[in-house]
This record gives sequence, C-alpha cells and structure tokens, in this order.
Amino acid sequence: MNDEAYMRRALEQARQGLWSTSPNPRVGCVFVKQGKIIAEGFHQRAGGPHAEVAAINQANDDLAGATAYVTLEPCSHFGRTPPCCQTLAKLKLERVVVAMTDPNPVVSGRGLAVLQKAGFQVDVGILEEEALQLNRGYIKRMKQQGPWLFGKVAISIDGGMALASGESKWITGDKARQDVMTLRAQSCAILTGVKTVIQDDPLLNARLEHLGETNKPMLRQPDLVILDTRLSMPLDARLFGTQDNRNIVVVVGKGLADSKKQQQLSAMGVEIITLPVYAGGVDLKALQQWLKTTEYNEVMVESGPTLMSQFLRQQLLDELVVYQAPMLMGKGSQTIYQVQTTHLTDAARFKLIDSQVLGDDIRSRYQRKVEAELEV
Amino acid sequence: MNDEAYMRRALEQARQGLWSTSPNPRVGCVFVKQGKIIAEGFHQRAGGPHAEVAAINQANDDLAGATAYVTLEPCSHFGRTPPCCQTLAKLKLERVVVAMTDPNPVVSGRGLAVLQKAGFQVDVGILEEEALQLNRGYIKRMKQQGPWLFGKVAISIDGGMALASGESKWITGDKARQDVMTLRAQSCAILTGVKTVIQDDPLLNARLEHLGETNKPMLRQPDLVILDTRLSMPLDARLFGTQDNRNIVVVVGKGLADSKKQQQLSAMGVEIITLPVYAGGVDLKALQQWLKTTEYNEVMVESGPTLMSQFLRQQLLDELVVYQAPMLMGKGSQTIYQVQTTHLTDAARFKLIDSQVLGDDIRSRYQRKVEAELEV
Repeated sequence: MNDEAYMRRALEQARQGLWSTSPNPRVGCVFVKQGKIIAEGFHQRAGGPHAEVAAINQANDDLAGATAYVTLEPCSHFGRTPPCCQTLAKLKLERVVVAMTDPNPVVSGRGLAVLQKAGFQVDVGILEEEALQLNRGYIKRMKQQGPWLFGKVAISIDGGMALASGESKWITGDKARQDVMTLRAQSCAILTGVKTVIQDDPLLNARLEHLGETNKPMLRQPDLVILDTRLSMPLDARLFGTQDNRNIVVVVGKGLADSKKQQQLSAMGVEIITLPVYAGGVDLKALQQWLKTTEYNEVMVESGPTLMSQFLRQQLLDELVVYQAPMLMGKGSQTIYQVQTTHLTDAARFKLIDSQVLGDDIRSRYQRKVEAELEV
Repeated sequence: MNDEAYMRRALEQARQGLWSTSPNPRVGCVFVKQGKIIAEGFHQRAGGPHAEVAAINQANDDLAGATAYVTLEPCSHFGRTPPCCQTLAKLKLERVVVAMTDPNPVVSGRGLAVLQKAGFQVDVGILEEEALQLNRGYIKRMKQQGPWLFGKVAISIDGGMALASGESKWITGDKARQDVMTLRAQSCAILTGVKTVIQDDPLLNARLEHLGETNKPMLRQPDLVILDTRLSMPLDARLFGTQDNRNIVVVVGKGLADSKKQQQLSAMGVEIITLPVYAGGVDLKALQQWLKTTEYNEVMVESGPTLMSQFLRQQLLDELVVYQAPMLMGKGSQTIYQVQTTHLTDAARFKLIDSQVLGDDIRSRYQRKVEAELEV
C-alpha cells in the first residue's frame, strides 16, 4: 500500500463522522508501521477526542517509528482538548502525512511547523481534493465566508416543483427521498420558508431508518431555520412537536412581526432573529451575513419555488442538488426558477458536478458558474 | 470463449451497419471453428449481401464443422438475394446459434426450421435483448405497428426548449449535439414541423464529421418529413439545398394547402402527402397510420415545443431522449409539455431507461409508462 491508499483509509474513517462532528470538521487518522495499519480512529463528536487521539487510544503496539496519516492538519490550539500536533510531537513517529492544511488562513501551517520541529518528515497534499470535499462547509466557514449553502429541489423533467394547485406529493421515489435524508443529516441546518411550513406541515428532520438498525448512524439533528417575514407561522406546526432536541430559529422581518407571537415562540424555546426587509421578504443578503455568525458548516435550503427562486436569482447558493423524476407536469406548474430570461446569455448557468440514477429518478449536482467561466 | 462472447462479436459486426442498412435490419454473423473465429461479416446496405453471405465470402477456411452465430434468424424468403437459411443449409455446419427469431410473426421460425431440417443443431435466444434493442424499429415495423417513433429535446434544467422570444441557440454543448447527429444517422426519417423550418431554417441532416476521416461512417441521409398543415413552407429553405439526395416529404392538411404551391414543391422533387386535420393541425393519429405504410424503421421527432407537446399529449412517442443543459431559463420560456396537469396522478409519466453525462449536459432516455405500470 502507498500513501494514497492509507490516506483513503483515513478518509473512510473520517466519513464515519459525517453526521455527527459539526461544528467540528470530519477527520480521520491512521497509524502505519512496517506496512501494517496498527491503529485508526476518527473524530466523532464536538467535545470528544480528535481523530489522532482516538487512533492513539486504539493502538496496542508501540507507535514509535510509525507514520501517521491525517486527513486534516493536526490542530495547534487549545480548545476543548489539547492541541493534537503536540500530542503527536511527543510520539517517536517517523513521518506525518497530511491531506490538507488547516483551512483557517491565520493558523494554517502552525500544526505542521510543530511536527517538523519535532523532527518528523511531514508531507502534505495527499488526496487533498477528497479531503476538501469532505469538509467544504467547515473550510468555507473557517475562511470567514459563512456556511456552504446548497439548495435541494425535487422536480419533474420540465422543472415543476408543484402543480398550480400546490400539489407536490410525491414527485420523486423512495431512493431519492432517502438520499435527501442523508443530505439533511449532513447539514448543520435546514433552511426553509414559512410557506412550506403552512402548506406541507413537514418535520424537516433527518430520518435514516432505511439504513437499518445495524448501521444505525451517529446522528445529531440539523437545526431548523425558518424565514417568516410576517411571523405567520402556525404555533401548532408539526415541526415543533419532534423530540429531536434541536434548535429552531425563526427569522422575521424588522418591524413586521407581532411581538406577542414572538414572545410565545420564545417561550417555546424558539430563537427569533430579526433581519431587514428587502422586496417584501427577509433580505437574503442580510441572512447570509447572519449565517456567517453561526457555527453552521453546511446549510441546506429546502423550500418552495418562490424562496428557491430568490436564492437562485441572487446567486446565493454554492450548489444546487436536483432530483428529477420521470414525469412532465406541464403548463402552469410551479417551476424552480421564476425569473424571466430575456436572452440565453443571461440564463442562470451552472457547472454539472455529477449525475447519478437513483431508482427511477436522476440526482444531479450543479455548482454556480462564476462570471469568468461563462462562455460568451 | 462461449456462445455469449461470440454472439457479442456478431452484434459488434451488426452495429457496423447502424447507419446504412435501412429499411433492412442490422445483422451480423460470425463463423467459429475449433474455438477460433474463421470468418465474420455484416449486412451493409439494402441490396447488398446479407450478413451470412458477407461472412461466407470472407472465409478462407472450409466452413464444414463450424458454428454460425447470427444476430437475427436467417431469412427464408427470396428478396433481392436468395434465402440465407438455404445458403447456410448447403454448408456442412455443426451448429447455428441465433440471437432472436424473425420479428415478422407470420414467417418467424421458418428459417430455423430449414436449418434444423438440414441437420444442424439450432440454438435461439443468446443475447436476445441486445439483438432486440439493435433493431427495435425494424421489429416494430415487422409486427405491423409502424416505426419506432422517438422524440429528441434539448432543454434547460427547468424544461425550457426556447425563451419566450424563440431564442434557442444553443442550449446544449458540442458533445450533446454530436450525439444528436448519431441519432439522426440511425433514423430513417426526421420528423419536424414547419414552424421549426421557418424559425431556425435548419438542415436536419446527419453530419458526422466529429467521427473523423478514418472512422468515416457508412451513411445514408434520413428522409425528412415536415408537417405543414397550411403549406406555409418557404420554398428557399436551406433544407432543400443540401446535396444529400434524400427524400423530403411534406404533409399537408386536407383542403388547407394551396395547390399551386403543392405543384411547385412536387416539381422540386418533394413528395406531398395529404392527411385529415384535427384541432387545427395535421391529425397525428392519421400521420401514425401513414407512417405504417412507409419503410421507416426509426423516426426521430425533432420539433419545437408545440408539436412535441402534441406528440407527448397523444402518447405517440415510444421514447423521449432528453438532453438537459446546466442552465435555468425561468419564467415564460417555451417548455417541452404545454398541457395543464390538474392532479399529480394525471402527470405524463415515463420509465427512465438510462442516463449519461455528455460533456456539460445530461442525456436521459425515457419510455412511455403504460397504464398498467402506473402506480396509483
């Protein structure tokens, strides 16, 4: 086995924390000695041991002379646990291989410096792209750019999210809906509009029963952020009734929300955030700023056509995940993008990241095409 | 190698005729003796040798004791060439392996009977599904059900074929457009509406330059069938100017087409077909009946949204090929299906056959979902 193979193993370890580490990153660590993996571990939960420590705790053999493979530069600061670079420095390792440096540009490289000072050979950049993908939300946030914001839509071949009547249950099949659940589970928060709450009365939590009892995942429920400019939220909505112990945040428009109702919601444990109003709704740019103040790494927008359309128009989404069902909804259906395009050069353009068949549906991931990439 | 491997080879041979055999089927033949392929051939062009004869002509070794692999039951009738089953019967073969029987239910099995009478072991059904796919148009026609009729659309993620202004160039990228060319080349005819001719002035022929000089394919241009109820076709349309030597058929509505213009077109070598009118346009059910009288195996509908929508509404398409580009056209764009759906249970539903990334676009093939397959 070579460096890539061991780093791949470390990434597999890291992925075990996919649904539980936030606000921390997903990190895995593997110790290799004389061509054998002698210990491995991953970060499971904020407050718990980091991946390096989890692996060390698991080791039976002496780690002296081993090589450590870590998917993220070992931390160099005292947080809830002591800095991992110092923990590693105390071992008589031969080499440390790191997939990517600390995403926070201010501290990036400090952990590596400590390891080099300890006399270890340090190699950086093995499977860097995979490591970046795994923590793209955390990385974006560490760079002070706020969470990775992605939209999810279930649409027909002709882009319908719902019929004119609002009917939208169900568009996609079981496999696609189960996949949505894993996206929810990965997210730190689900963002929706009050219209969706009123119309569909959804739970908007992550339900992973389809993974079965034996694979029962570590899971923390994503927070729920509801845009509700005029605070028209029904107080008996089903989403208040779940026993998930998650935070619910209601974002209201400045001066537009009844203060008594705000108090009622606060008493129910709901956090109220007041933001400026733009074009009749909560200003999404202000929302973006507020999101930067949170500890959310990945935020998933699951809304109806009106709100989704606004996110798309203002180019606020880093990614759009499209589940497309084999049906045509036809004229008058509520489509994903309610903006008029005058010329094809003005159409909202994306870069296709990947596309996959899920049962009868197709899941395609798109990222925003930045100006420079647009062909004229 | 086993039967499947040899039959796969015979199918590869058959595919070399993909763009040239119509109205005949694509057929390949491989002779195997003592574990070695000693001859192979395929049917190239109507009037030319059938696959069996092409392979026999290529053989250097004595075919006595060989096994013949043929992708379609050897023909049993005198056409432009003598019946292949008799040609094979004269050889001292050991065995004949056939992928599928003759699709014409009236003559199906006759060729096999001749071979069995000749004392050969005959095995049928090896890679039958692949053989059926390769000639699905021919098979459908032989069963008196007319050509395989499939629609092709290039659309945005939200189902737009064109902006409100009609602008539609270009939606998809090079790879998708090249793929469309191969679909055209496979088709016996391209079917379109006069609106497309007036708006886009297209050539609607098969151009396979992207395959390169060395792979220069055998090719016959597909016929062109233009629905033009009121005969508003411009006589100087570019499609009349190609040197392709292909048939152009203009289908007009009974009593709605100027007879002088009809004469002009006839003088230009254009065939005029008159069909009844339904809801303001040529009756598509009547068109379907007329198509049954032609020798077309596969007909590709490449039209604008109005005509495509009618084909979809009347469920006349066996298949829909969707090229989806990474863009959103938004409100007011001309979408693929201009029929209003009242309930989701009434939406036009399909079965996803396959989906593939082509450059920046996604190509998905859908087949009509018949009533019995619809979940209620």
